[in-house]
Amino acid sequence: MGFRLTPQETSFYDLFAQQASHIVDGAKELTALLGVAPTEREAVAQRMRDLEHAADEATHEIMRKVNSSFITPFDREDIYGLAANLDDCMDLMEAAVDLIVLYRIGELPSGIAAQVEVLARMSELTAEAMPRLRSMSDLQEYWIEINRLENQADQVYRRLLAELFNNGADAITVLKLKEVIDELEAAADAFEKVAHAVESIAVKES
Amino acid sequence: MGFRLTPQETSFYDLFAQQASHIVDGAKELTALLGVAPTEREAVAQRMRDLEHAADEATHEIMRKVNSSFITPFDREDIYGLAANLDDCMDLMEAAVDLIVLYRIGELPSGIAAQVEVLARMSELTAEAMPRLRSMSDLQEYWIEINRLENQADQVYRRLLAELFNNGADAITVLKLKEVIDELEAAADAFEKVAHAVESIAVKES
Amino acid sequence: MGFRLTPQETSFYDLFAQQASHIVDGAKELTALLGVAPTEREAVAQRMRDLEHAADEATHEIMRKVNSSFITPFDREDIYGLAANLDDCMDLMEAAVDLIVLYRIGELPSGIAAQVEVLARMSELTAEAMPRLRSMSDLQEYWIEINRLENQADQVYRRLLAELFNNGADAITVLKLKEVIDELEAAADAFEKVAHAVESIAVKES
Repeated sequence: MGFRLTPQETSFYDLFAQQASHIVDGAKELTALLGVAPTEREAVAQRMRDLEHAADEATHEIMRKVNSSFITPFDREDIYGLAANLDDCMDLMEAAVDLIVLYRIGELPSGIAAQVEVLARMSELTAEAMPRLRSMSDLQEYWIEINRLENQADQVYRRLLAELFNNGADAITVLKLKEVIDELEAAADAFEKVAHAVESIAVKES
Repeated sequence: MGFRLTPQETSFYDLFAQQASHIVDGAKELTALLGVAPTEREAVAQRMRDLEHAADEATHEIMRKVNSSFITPFDREDIYGLAANLDDCMDLMEAAVDLIVLYRIGELPSGIAAQVEVLARMSELTAEAMPRLRSMSDLQEYWIEINRLENQADQVYRRLLAELFNNGADAITVLKLKEVIDELEAAADAFEKVAHAVESIAVKES
Repeated sequence: MGFRLTPQETSFYDLFAQQASHIVDGAKELTALLGVAPTEREAVAQRMRDLEHAADEATHEIMRKVNSSFITPFDREDIYGLAANLDDCMDLMEAAVDLIVLYRIGELPSGIAAQVEVLARMSELTAEAMPRLRSMSDLQEYWIEINRLENQADQVYRRLLAELFNNGADAITVLKLKEVIDELEAAADAFEKVAHAVESIAVKES
């Protein structure tokens, strides 16, 4: 009769995959928000909040599992850190959506679409990478591509701010938009932190 | 004749408790600031600076102790991280007080009181939790409650900014107040980082 | 016949020294920028970008080396963290230079020179400390001095913002300058994080 020595390891990967899949859905809602009229935004924001709660649940499930598992597939602190970083990606995208509604922002500058496009790509790459944690294979291309996208996000971010500051909008409008743009930039940074966490785990395990 | 194997362990807990007690006092000064006239603020700011120096001393004492102790009650890096996170709580509350004086801010929006109330509660919970590090018991309720308060702080923060942006104040006044509000929000985040540090220590030790 | 057990250790120190020397050069370009006419700034920004790329290369070289080395002079994660923190110092100084050009900022407030002076000093101290990682000697004075300089940078930063907010400039100009000043302040924080990383390595190794 066979038995599995570490049956509980399996679902850490599943939980990370689940967290990442909520993030992909969140990036889709964020993309959707850019295409709807301001009056339709609250409905998107509500779906975004629901996704954020679901992601929160997945995060807490991982935390509980770390606390109660005797054996974990990699260091407890690293599981912790990775889950927390993934959670940040979701929180920051949700914050951007919430602020757009809360600040009653009218038209969004077109440059925001470029930011969101990078985030959508980052979320897909992240979701594709999570199952590969199991074998620790083909992860390098993932983190290299995330780093590249994060550099691109930085470029987009700076150009967007330069445009915003120089286009003659009133200062309060500029301040509101800057808050939103900053949250999106922070989300790109958070995806890079996820990639760093994965890289650091892979380095340790190799 | 009995002897204690690790006599030096005692005072790490004492030092953390001391750091946290300065933070409780700091939160009290911050609360006091909201109730005094602008001309009385400098006196509060001076007391706040004194508390910040005292907390700094406690932090450095912990750092020195880590460097010179042969045995520590938990990982050196974790002691380090916890002390640094506690120090941040104090620094950020002190920064908020300093900026209010430095920017010669007049009336403070009432929403700031809600932010400060959450910080005062967080500081008390943190101070109550520090002695429990010794037995690593009853800590979970502490970090769960801190997480809840941090979510509440986030809500207060966003509503406060939305109000600030939409109330017709001039942009420079908005910018000044935003700096103060941001420091207070960062202080709430710092308390959450303390709770995460405690959680991570508890996970390792369990 | 003799042999070296860990020949690869040597060049981690060399690579850190190389990273730090790019940062010293970066701080020099940043200083130079303050002395040239706005029309000459783009040339400085180009040199800064080149330095940033060179520093990036050194960072990636360290990362690759960590991944491929069997033995490392200290913990892999710590090498990682130190390299990443050094990279941040450069990135943030480069960002400040880029924003000055991108936002088409006219005259720079004189207080910025005080910020840059502190950064130049921090970069020199950091470059001087890197070779001492090999023997782990005389590092304490380095991190104490960096902490002192970071406190000084904080003071300069707050006074500079207070001045900026109260000098009657229009809000958009204030916003642009604040972005630059914030990047420089973040660079000072990044130098402190480098010092913390060194301190934490020294504590572990001692």
